[in-house]
Amino acid sequence: MTGNGRDPLPSWREGPSKERLLRFVEAVSHPGSADHVAPEERIAVFDNDGTLWSEQPMYGQLAFALERARTLLQQRPELAGDPLVAAAAAGDLQTLMGQGMRGLLELVGHTHAGMTNAAFSALVRRWLQDARHPGLGVPYTQLVYQPMLELLALLRAHDFRLWIVTGGGAEFVRVFAEELYGIPPERVIGSTIRLRYGEETGEPALWREPTVDFIDDGDGKPVGIERAIGRRPIAAFGNSDGDLAMLRWTTAAPGPRLGLLLHHDDGEREVAYDRHSPFGRLDRGLELAAVHGWSLVSMRRDWHRVFTAPDP
Amino acid sequence: MTGNGRDPLPSWREGPSKERLLRFVEAVSHPGSADHVAPEERIAVFDNDGTLWSEQPMYGQLAFALERARTLLQQRPELAGDPLVAAAAAGDLQTLMGQGMRGLLELVGHTHAGMTNAAFSALVRRWLQDARHPGLGVPYTQLVYQPMLELLALLRAHDFRLWIVTGGGAEFVRVFAEELYGIPPERVIGSTIRLRYGEETGEPALWREPTVDFIDDGDGKPVGIERAIGRRPIAAFGNSDGDLAMLRWTTAAPGPRLGLLLHHDDGEREVAYDRHSPFGRLDRGLELAAVHGWSLVSMRRDWHRVFTAPDP
Repeated sequence: MTGNGRDPLPSWREGPSKERLLRFVEAVSHPGSADHVAPEERIAVFDNDGTLWSEQPMYGQLAFALERARTLLQQRPELAGDPLVAAAAAGDLQTLMGQGMRGLLELVGHTHAGMTNAAFSALVRRWLQDARHPGLGVPYTQLVYQPMLELLALLRAHDFRLWIVTGGGAEFVRVFAEELYGIPPERVIGSTIRLRYGEETGEPALWREPTVDFIDDGDGKPVGIERAIGRRPIAAFGNSDGDLAMLRWTTAAPGPRLGLLLHHDDGEREVAYDRHSPFGRLDRGLELAAVHGWSLVSMRRDWHRVFTAPDP
Repeated sequence: MTGNGRDPLPSWREGPSKERLLRFVEAVSHPGSADHVAPEERIAVFDNDGTLWSEQPMYGQLAFALERARTLLQQRPELAGDPLVAAAAAGDLQTLMGQGMRGLLELVGHTHAGMTNAAFSALVRRWLQDARHPGLGVPYTQLVYQPMLELLALLRAHDFRLWIVTGGGAEFVRVFAEELYGIPPERVIGSTIRLRYGEETGEPALWREPTVDFIDDGDGKPVGIERAIGRRPIAAFGNSDGDLAMLRWTTAAPGPRLGLLLHHDDGEREVAYDRHSPFGRLDRGLELAAVHGWSLVSMRRDWHRVFTAPDP
């Protein structure tokens, strides 16, 4: 509990996960503590999809790409001959995912490039206003996890520096990270597409080229962290095997460290999935949590409430 | 002048450059001002070599590379057969520069890779303690420009967010940016070498691979800025043609903007160089400053004092 006696994590049920979070925050931030960490080193990194907001039945950014494919096909009917664009426009996930990473990167090249970065942000902003989650019919922005917002607030109140480290596109997530999470653009690390500076239109612009040049997932996450921050985090929060390198990099250093994996085991209030999910697969992590001493949080048991919007 | 009547830029002589700096800072930060800019958008970007510290007779990082080449040659005599390493170890700049960018990148591959990022930082730290500037015999850390430190302090006091945007290596500059300039590692954008995450030694590590994967110079600077910050700066400070895209990107947007180029025209206290220098060449910028309304600061006329150490 914090000094004023009010529970800073009301959506977290009492139990080992909550206790550990509160103890860690207190230990590293209390001036007299043996585990005290200077504020500038109090760095916490958060995965986004499946950790801060829902990633089912598909990543929000994939839904955006499908919608973009539909628009592109209307604007340029000749693209119907491209099986990937056609599958995306038809919402045919099976064909899309069957192409593996190569197919997804090609789809990103079609749907996320060929415009300036400013134009892309405007497209994402509009999509975010209009789009509705296919199952729940609510804007994606309502699928943020209330317990995680409370955790962000608790860490911020204890002078932590909060960063998002997402497998999604940095420029995609930056459009909403400040409004949804209070995390400004310069604290969002993500996958990137090649940018090219040019003045050919008379005004300087940053053009998005159809090549993904960094994938901030798996072993890419510690690389993205080192690139952007240049310091090693002391706390890392994720939910899938794509977050394991980030948790390992964070927690394998000396001093007080915290690793946390969110287990999506609540089929009533959200979706129960782990080892066999095409999105946010959590397989090796289920074993590694115990090996490395990471908290494995059960959405079902550890959370009073799931979404910021009323739970379904 | 600031509110308390004390001159915040005592090493700057009175004149248009100083006046413009003071007016700009006041205009964007004064709450009632028509040109007021919110603190989170008050972003100022600084080149490092030749803008915050001296870059003559060669970049500090090149001096480090030559020293590393000498050490490598002692450890692995077979490298003497590599003309590039041999030239670097002999301090033969003419041969080195004759190889152009390709040669320099290859030298970086030899001297900056094959170790973890942590080991590299330790090497730079040691070099910085031991190395002496060839002409002046002082540590490189004493070749910081006092007027620029005063400018950093003035901007910081007015809630600016200060970033370094260097053509040098991000991980090289981060070793000293906090101590010399008060700029923490997460605010240093620079050129980067490929990093690879691996646990093959039992502990997680980030390994430096011998491939430069981003050159944060020229048209790369706006790209590096967008990648790291995701916002457009309102003030940019440089000294060479490698900074022109950064100044253009910064100042071509609407609202109050400031671009400044430092002209090294003081052969007595430092080195006079511009259009024909192999390092920090300022050629097109001498014309573009007038075209785009950037301040062209004369070290000779505009600065009372040059270095933080007593001027030579």
